[in-house]
Amino acid sequence: MATLTQEQVVTELARTPDWLADDGQLTRTVTRKDFRDALLFVNAVGFLAERANHHPDIVIAWNKVTLILSTHSEGGLTSKDFALARQVSELA
Amino acid sequence: MATLTQEQVVTELARTPDWLADDGQLTRTVTRKDFRDALLFVNAVGFLAERANHHPDIVIAWNKVTLILSTHSEGGLTSKDFALARQVSELA
Repeated sequence: MATLTQEQVVTELARTPDWLADDGQLTRTVTRKDFRDALLFVNAVGFLAERANHHPDIVIAWNKVTLILSTHSEGGLTSKDFALARQVSELA
Repeated sequence: MATLTQEQVVTELARTPDWLADDGQLTRTVTRKDFRDALLFVNAVGFLAERANHHPDIVIAWNKVTLILSTHSEGGLTSKDFALARQVSELA
């Protein structure tokens, strides 16, 4: 799986609202009701990540969850990152 | 609840191995078997955090979980941080 070109990233981003692409990473911060709700959300993200065998870095700061996607083996963004991002967005 | 003095932090740290105190934060990174095990660990930490009504920032990077404790309302480290750190260490 190759990293996406700049043009491909732009095209994918148009289909992936609420996510930011920068420096080979795709990120989104989701605000939940409280810590407990944030942790439930992280578990749902974890299920999707395991299913895809593709794991974002996850930062929990009380009710805020930041997800950072990148395909480390390829050194940048691939279609796997955008596919998982869109699945996560179905939850958020 | 007041922030701890430097001397108190040193005393508490001696009772809280594997944690680092720096810049008003108490941190530890735990390495688990894989992402799934890391997420189980985070859920156990979440239970302890809810019980204590004191929530660390949590960073999950595949099998590595970094916990960052601070008492934001007091602007530094209090005995609550060390108490929760020791409870977490019972898990790790």
